[in-house]
Amino acid sequence: MRMHAHRSDTRLASLVLAFLLLIAAANSVFAQEVLSSWSDGAAKTRIMAFVKATTTEGTDRYVAPDDRIAVFDNDGTLWSEQPFYFQLGFMLDRVKVLAPQHPEWKAKEPFKSILAGDLAGVAKSGEKGIVELGMATHAGMTTDEFAKIVTDWFATARHPKTGKPYNEMTFVPMRELLDYLRANGFRTYIVSGGGVEFMRPMTEKAYGIPAEQVIGSTIVTQYDLVDDVPVLRRLPKIDFIDDGPGKPSGINKFIGRRPIFVAGNSDGDYEMLRWVTAGKGPSFAMIVHHTDATREYAYDRKSAFGKLDKALDEAAQRNWLVVDMKDDWKKIYPFEQ
Amino acid sequence: MRMHAHRSDTRLASLVLAFLLLIAAANSVFAQEVLSSWSDGAAKTRIMAFVKATTTEGTDRYVAPDDRIAVFDNDGTLWSEQPFYFQLGFMLDRVKVLAPQHPEWKAKEPFKSILAGDLAGVAKSGEKGIVELGMATHAGMTTDEFAKIVTDWFATARHPKTGKPYNEMTFVPMRELLDYLRANGFRTYIVSGGGVEFMRPMTEKAYGIPAEQVIGSTIVTQYDLVDDVPVLRRLPKIDFIDDGPGKPSGINKFIGRRPIFVAGNSDGDYEMLRWVTAGKGPSFAMIVHHTDATREYAYDRKSAFGKLDKALDEAAQRNWLVVDMKDDWKKIYPFEQ
Repeated sequence: MRMHAHRSDTRLASLVLAFLLLIAAANSVFAQEVLSSWSDGAAKTRIMAFVKATTTEGTDRYVAPDDRIAVFDNDGTLWSEQPFYFQLGFMLDRVKVLAPQHPEWKAKEPFKSILAGDLAGVAKSGEKGIVELGMATHAGMTTDEFAKIVTDWFATARHPKTGKPYNEMTFVPMRELLDYLRANGFRTYIVSGGGVEFMRPMTEKAYGIPAEQVIGSTIVTQYDLVDDVPVLRRLPKIDFIDDGPGKPSGINKFIGRRPIFVAGNSDGDYEMLRWVTAGKGPSFAMIVHHTDATREYAYDRKSAFGKLDKALDEAAQRNWLVVDMKDDWKKIYPFEQ
Repeated sequence: MRMHAHRSDTRLASLVLAFLLLIAAANSVFAQEVLSSWSDGAAKTRIMAFVKATTTEGTDRYVAPDDRIAVFDNDGTLWSEQPFYFQLGFMLDRVKVLAPQHPEWKAKEPFKSILAGDLAGVAKSGEKGIVELGMATHAGMTTDEFAKIVTDWFATARHPKTGKPYNEMTFVPMRELLDYLRANGFRTYIVSGGGVEFMRPMTEKAYGIPAEQVIGSTIVTQYDLVDDVPVLRRLPKIDFIDDGPGKPSGINKFIGRRPIFVAGNSDGDYEMLRWVTAGKGPSFAMIVHHTDATREYAYDRKSAFGKLDKALDEAAQRNWLVVDMKDDWKKIYPFEQ
């Protein structure tokens, strides 16, 4: 009789054992997979120490899940921004597509230079030229139409150096960091100077970041009826520039509380880095430093895109982590072998 | 031996039974609690039918969790807006607090009328006067300072009719609806003409809606340093009015996708109701109709606050649910017996 009772206990014990093994396996997989494209070193260690401290109850650095908000710049932080912001690539392509409807562009900058393939000429048109370019390519359609234009562009456009789709030009270590933070109860936001409706069609798939967690520059939209069906028209009028000192304002407007984790890569992120690290509780700031001329690009102080000067100077004094892409990242792009 | 094996099986069976009972109890509690302040009738039935259809996989009206977004007007929809918008109550109180620092207000409208307790005089100052009043009471401080001012006000101010704190003047059936939608995988947003930084200090506790899911009117904020500490200053300049046709724009800007559920109570919500119900998939719109002069207020077409005219006229034709507060709600306020 002892044996039979034992048989039943054994069945239960086997189940428990199987369950424990499953948990152990899951933990082991988890331990292996966290930030696996990051080199073992100070950068990875500091990030993990911050996440551990802020998610461990009972410690004085613990942060409740509601306040675990992480903000990420996009261009140069989550994906490449060289040889030019990818949104500029979109504008250049759109000008070529729209040119037949705009014969006047042949004589008008910056369109003339674009159509002649003269990027230096485009740069000469300055901020005024870029704004005009932005309005010509981003306004005049409904929000639904624009989303389709962007989606179609991402499906066909290719990066000039790698020949890969732009939405594959994302940094694997940063995608791992986003996953890791979310697995630890953080909500991850993009806070970018890029146009919000340019980014949204790709952020969910590329980063696991839904549309409502993308903060960016906006143009004015206007409610209208077409055959009694409501649409939102994109007007050629800037609503908000989410860059530099605009980033803390954008964070305040859209999120309404101060993040505790921030990642950027340029002086356009300087005020956001300051804002996040001025919070009363624990906070963490990191700068992606582009140091890898072979696998990506090497640039900082004199770059036209992603100039990193002031933030780099102050990083040590402010205890901001500077991530060296060449040394700290074992892998950069998803398509690398 | 059979007996002993049986003893072990019995233990297991007891556990399973206890577990099933627990589930049954939980379900029963759930069934009792869903929309319990709503009368059994067409309104409640229609709401529950929509939620069931959109959350049942395999049906043609099923909506994936990512797209289950519900938007709610605040004033008159989630809480009362009578005898005046509560944010106006805040402004009136602030003018009294700030008056000693502004001797010039004694001779200047709308401040003069406010200090004389003459609400009709305030109304006479028109939109220009109200904007001036808003700027005088909402700008000139940092965002942190303003949050404290609002929090302190909510802690002490009382509704002129009920004598209750304003954040208890919320509608219990709507709070139940928010809970019910969230329990079914919806994300609930406020989309209000009210100031976003006026609402955020109370929405989490009152509605379970976190700061980042509150969309409202905004003023311009500016990044600044005080003793080398970053602050955001609230400037006396309107950034965005989230009302009427502005509501679809606000939804697009902040959420970036079209909600499938909307609740409003006035013509200021008309375009938002149109926008949501013009989506390609299933959608649901409801209007809170203030019909209860005894427990709350009765008003619609001629009201200064919460005028409901066009939306009411078109509700039947557009299949928008009109909720009759008197008949459809068994309870209105949390403090009712």
